Amino acid sequence: MDDRIHEHARVLVDWSARVEAGDDVVMSVAEGAHDLAVAVAEQLGDRGANLVATYGSDEVSRAYLRAHDGEFDADPEHELALYEAADVVLRLGGGRNTAATADLPGETRQAFARAREGVREARMATDWVSTVHPTRSLAQQAGMAYEEYQEFAYDAILRDWESLAEEMATMKEILDEGEEVRIIKEKTDLAMSIAGRTAVNSAASVVYDSHNLPSGEVFTAPYDPEGEVFFDVPMTLNGKRVTDVSLAFEDGEVVDYAAGQNEDVLGDILDTDDGARRLGELGIGMNRGIDRFTDSILFDEKMGDTVHLAVGRAYDACLPEGEDGNRSAVHVDMITDVSEDSRLEVDGEVVQRNGRFRWEDGFEA
Amino acid sequence: MDDRIHEHARVLVDWSARVEAGDDVVMSVAEGAHDLAVAVAEQLGDRGANLVATYGSDEVSRAYLRAHDGEFDADPEHELALYEAADVVLRLGGGRNTAATADLPGETRQAFARAREGVREARMATDWVSTVHPTRSLAQQAGMAYEEYQEFAYDAILRDWESLAEEMATMKEILDEGEEVRIIKEKTDLAMSIAGRTAVNSAASVVYDSHNLPSGEVFTAPYDPEGEVFFDVPMTLNGKRVTDVSLAFEDGEVVDYAAGQNEDVLGDILDTDDGARRLGELGIGMNRGIDRFTDSILFDEKMGDTVHLAVGRAYDACLPEGEDGNRSAVHVDMITDVSEDSRLEVDGEVVQRNGRFRWEDGFEA
Repeated sequence: MDDRIHEHARVLVDWSARVEAGDDVVMSVAEGAHDLAVAVAEQLGDRGANLVATYGSDEVSRAYLRAHDGEFDADPEHELALYEAADVVLRLGGGRNTAATADLPGETRQAFARAREGVREARMATDWVSTVHPTRSLAQQAGMAYEEYQEFAYDAILRDWESLAEEMATMKEILDEGEEVRIIKEKTDLAMSIAGRTAVNSAASVVYDSHNLPSGEVFTAPYDPEGEVFFDVPMTLNGKRVTDVSLAFEDGEVVDYAAGQNEDVLGDILDTDDGARRLGELGIGMNRGIDRFTDSILFDEKMGDTVHLAVGRAYDACLPEGEDGNRSAVHVDMITDVSEDSRLEVDGEVVQRNGRFRWEDGFEA
Repeated sequence: MDDRIHEHARVLVDWSARVEAGDDVVMSVAEGAHDLAVAVAEQLGDRGANLVATYGSDEVSRAYLRAHDGEFDADPEHELALYEAADVVLRLGGGRNTAATADLPGETRQAFARAREGVREARMATDWVSTVHPTRSLAQQAGMAYEEYQEFAYDAILRDWESLAEEMATMKEILDEGEEVRIIKEKTDLAMSIAGRTAVNSAASVVYDSHNLPSGEVFTAPYDPEGEVFFDVPMTLNGKRVTDVSLAFEDGEVVDYAAGQNEDVLGDILDTDDGARRLGELGIGMNRGIDRFTDSILFDEKMGDTVHLAVGRAYDACLPEGEDGNRSAVHVDMITDVSEDSRLEVDGEVVQRNGRFRWEDGFEA
C-alpha cells in the first residue's frame, strides 16, 4: 500500500480526531475508500479504540431512497443509538461516481434530511472528521489524471498543520473582535453581522473545532445578511453542476436567487426548511497548499484567495454558549474568488484586497 | 443488473427476514457484495424499513485486529446499542479473498470473539439472516468458473422454500420425538442425547427459526455425546483448509482431536472457551438442490446426504424455554458424507441408510 495512505490515516486519527484508547469510533467507508479504511482500521486497532465500520455507499443510498415512498420514520432508534453512544465519527469519502445520486428527486433528499435531524445532531456532537480518499472519480471531477490528483490531494492533506494554525490565528482574532463583515466585488456587495460570534481556526483537528481533513480556513457564523453576492466558482450540488449562483438577501433571508445552470437544484436546497434561506457560515480560505479548484467543496473552500458562504446550519462552535444560531437540515457552501478586484472589510477596515491580507507583503490599503 | 440479484434480494427481505414497514434493519455488506446490497436496499426502501449499512470487510477486520494489543474492551457501547435497537440484521457475505484473514493469530480471534459476546447475543436476538452474494472469490474456493458458480448459487437460493419446508417437517417430527441419535460410518460411532430438544425445520425463514439463505436442513441441539466421529468433507476455518477431522467425545466433551491438515486451527477453535469443546448442533442436510461441495459452510451443510455437527454455541430455538444449552463464543460446523456405508439411527431405529431416508424409495431397513 502507498505510504501516503498510511500517513493520511495517521494524520486523521492522531492530529484530526485525537483518538484515544477505549474511544467508540464509527468509520463510514465510501465505495472507493477501501484502502484508506484498511489503513485507518490499523491505526484504530493500534490505539485500542473500538470500531464499527459503516458502508457509506451512494449507490446503496440512491436505491433505498428512490424505492421509498418518502414518508420516512424520524430518527430510527438503531441509527440514533449508534451515534449517541459514539465518541468519534470518521467519514471516509471517495466514491466511484460523483454523480451517483444525480437522479434523486430534491424533495426526497429534503424529506430524508429532515427525518434524520436527530441522527445528524448526535453525529455532530461527537469528535467527527470528514476526509476523502483520492479516487479516480474525484480525479475525473477535478479534470485531472489519477496520479496527478493523488499528488494534489496528499499535498493538501499531509501538511504542517501546527504551523498553518499559527498563521490563521491572526484572522480569527480580527473576526472575533469584529462586528460587521462586508464583501465587495463584481455583482457583490454583501454586509453581515458577526457580533458576539466566535471564529474557528480550522486547522483540521477537533481540538480547534475543525472537522475537515484537509482544512485551512477561518470561519464564523454570520447573521442578518443584507445585499447581493455572486459565486463565480462552479460547484456540484446533489450530483449536479451548478454555476454562477447569485443570492439576494433582505432582512437576513434569501429573497431572490439565480444560477447559470441547474437553478432548480439550488431552489430545492433553499426550500428544505426555513433555515436553508439564512446564512450558516462565512469562511475565509487560507490554505495556499490548495492551488486550484477541483470541484470538491472539501478542497475548494479551503483554497487561499477565496471566501465562501453557506446557507443552512451554523456550527455550534461559533455560537455563544446556549445560543442556537441558524438551524437547518442542510449546510451548503458556495465559493467566490477574491483574488482580483475585490475586498473584504471588517468594521469598515480593509482586511484583504485582491487576495492579499493586510499583514502580507503587497497589500494595498 | 442481473435479474437474479433482484430476486435474491426479494427472497431475503420477504421470505427470509419478513421485513415490515418501520423495522430497524442493519445490513452488513462484505467487500464483494455491493450489487446485492444495492438490490436489498431497494427492497428495504420499498417496504418502508429503516436502514443502517455496515461494512463487513475482512481486510478492515484483519488490519484492526492485527494492530490491536489483544486487550479488547468488552462489548463497546455504540456497537451494542446498534444491535440492541435493531429488529433485523441482514448479513450479505461474499468477499474478494476467502483467505483474507488467514494470518490472524488464533488467540486474537478468540479474545475478540469473547469480548463481543454481548454484541453477538444482541444480534442473534434479532430476526437475523445470513446470505452470500456469489463472487469470483467464492467461485475460486469452489473450484468453479464464475458463471458456473452463479448458476450453482442461485439454484440453491432461488428455490420453492414452502415446498421444501413441507418435506423437512417429517424429519423434524422424528427428532422432536426422539431421545438419542446415533451416527455410524467408517471411523464413526457417535451417540448423543436430544431428549427435550426441539428441532428446527430450517427453511430459510425467521418464521421457521431459520437464519440462512440458502438453507434446507433440519437441526437440533444435542448434548452428552459419546464416541468418535470422522468428518470427511474438507472445510476452510479461519481462512485455512482443514481436512479429515476426527473428534473423540467422553462425558460430553472433546477429549481428543486430529486433522489431516492445519490441526492447530482446530485446536485454537476448541480452546476458545469451555463450550467450544461441547456440541452446539446436529444438522441433517436435506437440500438436494445443492449437488456438490463448494467449500462454503453455508451451502455444504445443507446438501442432501450429509450430516453435520457443530462445536460451540447452541441455538436458542432448539432449547426448552429458559434453558441455556451450550454457550460459547464460537459455532463451527463440520460435515460428514452419509451417502454410502453409513446410517443414522434415532432411538435404535434406522432413519437414513446410505443417503436414503426411510420414507423414500430405495430405503433398506
